[in-house]
This record gives sequence, structure tokens and C-alpha cells, in this order.
Amino acid sequence: MFRPEIKVLDATIRDGGLMNDWWFDDDTVRDVWEAGCQAGLDYVELGYRASKKLFSPKDFGPWRFCAEADLRRIVGDGHPATKVSIMCDVGRVEDEDFLPAAESVVAMVRVATYVKEIDKAIALTNLCHDLGYETTINIMAISNALEWDIDEAVKQVEAETKVKALYVVDSFGALYSEQIHHLVDKYRGMLGPDKEVGIHCHNNQQLGFANTIEAIIHNANFLDATVFGIGRGAGNCPLELLLSFLKNPKFDVRPILDVCARRIIPMMDTLKWGYHLPYMITGVHNQHPRAGMAMVSRESTDYRAFWDEITAEEPVA
Amino acid sequence: MFRPEIKVLDATIRDGGLMNDWWFDDDTVRDVWEAGCQAGLDYVELGYRASKKLFSPKDFGPWRFCAEADLRRIVGDGHPATKVSIMCDVGRVEDEDFLPAAESVVAMVRVATYVKEIDKAIALTNLCHDLGYETTINIMAISNALEWDIDEAVKQVEAETKVKALYVVDSFGALYSEQIHHLVDKYRGMLGPDKEVGIHCHNNQQLGFANTIEAIIHNANFLDATVFGIGRGAGNCPLELLLSFLKNPKFDVRPILDVCARRIIPMMDTLKWGYHLPYMITGVHNQHPRAGMAMVSRESTDYRAFWDEITAEEPVA
Repeated sequence: MFRPEIKVLDATIRDGGLMNDWWFDDDTVRDVWEAGCQAGLDYVELGYRASKKLFSPKDFGPWRFCAEADLRRIVGDGHPATKVSIMCDVGRVEDEDFLPAAESVVAMVRVATYVKEIDKAIALTNLCHDLGYETTINIMAISNALEWDIDEAVKQVEAETKVKALYVVDSFGALYSEQIHHLVDKYRGMLGPDKEVGIHCHNNQQLGFANTIEAIIHNANFLDATVFGIGRGAGNCPLELLLSFLKNPKFDVRPILDVCARRIIPMMDTLKWGYHLPYMITGVHNQHPRAGMAMVSRESTDYRAFWDEITAEEPVA
Repeated sequence: MFRPEIKVLDATIRDGGLMNDWWFDDDTVRDVWEAGCQAGLDYVELGYRASKKLFSPKDFGPWRFCAEADLRRIVGDGHPATKVSIMCDVGRVEDEDFLPAAESVVAMVRVATYVKEIDKAIALTNLCHDLGYETTINIMAISNALEWDIDEAVKQVEAETKVKALYVVDSFGALYSEQIHHLVDKYRGMLGPDKEVGIHCHNNQQLGFANTIEAIIHNANFLDATVFGIGRGAGNCPLELLLSFLKNPKFDVRPILDVCARRIIPMMDTLKWGYHLPYMITGVHNQHPRAGMAMVSRESTDYRAFWDEITAEEPVA
């Protein structure tokens, strides 16, 4: 029996863009969007919305900004069943960057935040909600957040917002199944019935898909994935695995397999996401993959030295 | 708190050998063995024992046979804490292929079997036990076995053998966490306190490590892994992830990181294990990776056609 409340969101262009500064060509973006529609996805996230006052379009491709005209060039007036999502980071976007939802092809705005900035995230979320968008809040790097801060943030989101979902985001690919279980249960227990729990996992320890399943078992209903797991470092939960696992007959994994072959796998040689020991080492130690990415890009193979360096860096009293 | 009953077995040479017909050079085998000893592993499995009447040493490297002299050339008289394991398949070995354990550097013989051949496996296991070896039985392709047959086999193993462990072997990388949970609980419930449950997972759906954790949670204590996940198709549970997860201070992952860099990762270009869509597709459909391996070796990327072919092959009434 499938759970009709489950919504699947493809974050290929948004999350994959962290590796190429969102310089995807239109053919790729269109192909990912159309495959998502054909696969029966609920949302396709086409990038970040960021302020062009803060970031230069010379330095970043169009999917860093998701200007309305760029989005419409890809999706036209949209699709009857698959909605367009965009993400924004607290502090990197201004109020004037959002049209009223009725004038936009965007259906959902997701606000990414660290737990410490939850008040700013709530304000931005409420702005977007009042403009008519569906909203979510995605609390990043949750594996590094203090339990007290998480509790406060979840309480606030419940009391002060009308988000569709609050996400557990394992930015560092550090969490094991029992920790996913704990966090999803916590969110689920503290949120009312009008709000869903979302899950966004990274694959540094090869647990992206497994942890997404664990979240599903504990009633997370908003699920993020990317085509062939594309994403920074080891990447994300692979969409083709997730769709193959889900039982809802509305999903068809085959258009995703096509776009893997046509667009995504050919990018592996240059973008190099996937399982690499430097990401495994940052994941095990609950750290940002930054240092691992530097190690991969300089093609170092002294993993023992990197392990020792990361271990030595751990905070002591 | 760690669980001292947990035993870790490295199957790099034995399982990796399925890809190169066990033609590893001595330096590689010695390096894997010594890294295993330095890492504090309980067992290192150096290959299969097979009859040279049934398989020709012209066609297969030495680790297909694990002759006593070949083993001693690598391990000398062995190591005080890390034991040598070998595996044999029912029907591919003869009684005369085993010395008394007192004359061998081998400590443990693992018997691999399909559930239907459990009687033969029990006979071979008991032969080895009577010769003085530690033994296990590894029921392969458990995802395709009927519940009735599994129940009968586990009952027989409990009543008729003195194995150290009975393994759940997900040969096709097809099982999800709830199925691992079910099988490990079943074995654990039916076996007496002198027998442990073992787990051997494949990575076709990126669940090798996650399913091993799930088995640990449900009290499996014999854990298989391979260095950098080397193994047929998508490979196995990666040893470096498993050791990083386990809390027992006797384990040191760093020698395994060294052997990854020095010996195992350099083989990836030719042996090509890891996450590939053809293995994901066979895993999702609970099939042997054979057809996927053929697809990978001919470098086909028509994943949709392969999906449709595999789906069409499913048995109908």
C-alpha cells in the first residue's frame, strides 16, 4: 500500500548547481524538468533565487537566480501535476525578488537556514506565504545543531508559520538511521497535522537513500532526491532509487533513467560527485565536505593523513 | 557502548576475485591481509577453496583454491588476533581438499549454499567442524528464497550443526531495511545462544552499508565487508565505512584507507565495481546481476530498454 501524502521533489539543478555555479545549459534544464513531469514528480526545483545585488550574473549561471523569464523559457506556463520549486538562503535574497505567486510560474519557495537563523527564515517564509507561494523551511546541517536549538526552532515553525513542510537536512551526510529516526519522530511529534516532515539526505557515507527510507518509515512525506544522486561531494539520494522503492503507481522511473544517460552521467567526468574517501571521512566526522572537496580536486590519495588531520581538528575542552 | 561479540570479516580477495578469476598478485593479497591484521579485524577471507579436479589452475588464480602452501606464502603461520577464513561452495569441493585444522593456517571455513542445498551444506560444514575448523553457513540469494524453505533451513542448522554463525546473504542487493530486520530477527529467534547471525550485503541499491547497520541493530554479530566495497556488480558493504561506524576501540580504519589507496582504488578502472544503473535495475527487481554485468561490459546506456526487458521477464502465473 502506498502513502498518497508522499511528495517527491527533484533537486537536480538546484543542488547539482553547487558544483558548476549553476551553469547548466537550457537543454539540460529542460530535459530534467520534462523528465520530472513525465516521471510524475510532485516538484522540480530549478535553482536558487538569489539577489542580483549580492551575486553577479557574470559569476553565476541563471539557475542561481531563477529569474521569472528564465524559468518560463524552460517550463512555459508550467505543468498540471508537477510544480516548480525554487530555494532561497536566508540573507541572500531581498523581499523585492519575489513576484506575487499569481504572476509567477513558481509554486513553492523553500527557505534554507541554519538553526540559529530560524527567525529570519520564518520572516522570509511568511513573506512568501503571504505572496501566495507554498513554502517549506529546510534546517541545514542538522547533525551539528544542539537539541535545545532544534526544539526551539521546531516549536517556532509550528507556531509562527504556515509551511507545507519542515525538512531534516543532513548536509554533511553524517547521520545514521537511528539519528534520522530520532529527528523525524521529533519533528513529526511537534508539528501539527497541516505540516509535513521533509527529508534531504547526502551520500557521504552511502546512506542517502537508506536514510530517506528510514525517514519514510517514520512518516516523512516530503522527499528530496536528485538524478543519479548529482550533488556536491558524494551527492544526494538518487532519484531513480527512490522512485523504484515507492509504490505509488503515478511514478514512472523510466524518464529519469533516460535523462541519466542523456544528460547527467556524462557530467560525472567533470563534476566528479559520488563515493570518495575524503567525503566519507568528513561525513564520519560530521564535518562540511569542504576540506574533502579540496582533497579530491588536488587528487591527493593520502587518506590516512586526511583522517588524522580531521580527527585532530575535533574540538576539545 | 560497543558490543564485544561483533566480529568483522574482510572478504576483499574472496569476493573481489569473482571479478578477476582470483588473479590477484601476491603483493596485493599480502597487503590486504596485513592491513586487516593492523586494522584489528577478526577474520580475513583469502579466497575460495575449490577442487582442482573441477576447476583448472590454468583458468583460475590461486585464490580460487587457497592451497595451504599459497596461504602460508602470504600469512606465514598466521596472526595472533586475526584469523584466516576461506569459503567453499557446496558441490565444488571434495572432502580430501581439507587438511585437519591443526595442520592448516586456516581457522574458519564458510560454506556458501542456496537454501535448497542446505542438507549438502550441513554435511560439508560438519566435515569441516570435525576436522577442527570454525564454520559458518552462508545462505545465498535469500531474497529469492521461500519463507517455508528458510524456516526449515534455519531449524536444521540449529539442530544439526555447530556453526559459529548462520549468514543472511543478500546476493542480489535487493533487500530493504525492513526485510533485513525481518530475516535477522527470524534467524536470531530460531538459533540458540551458541550461534550468531551473520550479514553479507551487496550494494546494487546503495544499501550495503545501511543494511549491515540494520542487521547490527537487530543483533547480527558476524559482519562481512570488503575494502572500498570491491565485489561483483555494485560491490559490497565498504569495510572502511563499517569500521568507522563501529565503536570497538580495537578497530583502526587507517590501514584500510592505506590499502584502498595503494591497491584497491587503482583496480577500479579495470574491474569497474560500484553504483551503475544496470545493477540498480537488477537489484530493484531482485535478480542476479548477471544481465547487468553484461550491459556494463558492452557499455550500453539504454537503461530504459533494460528496465523494460527485466520487467517483462518477471514470472507470471
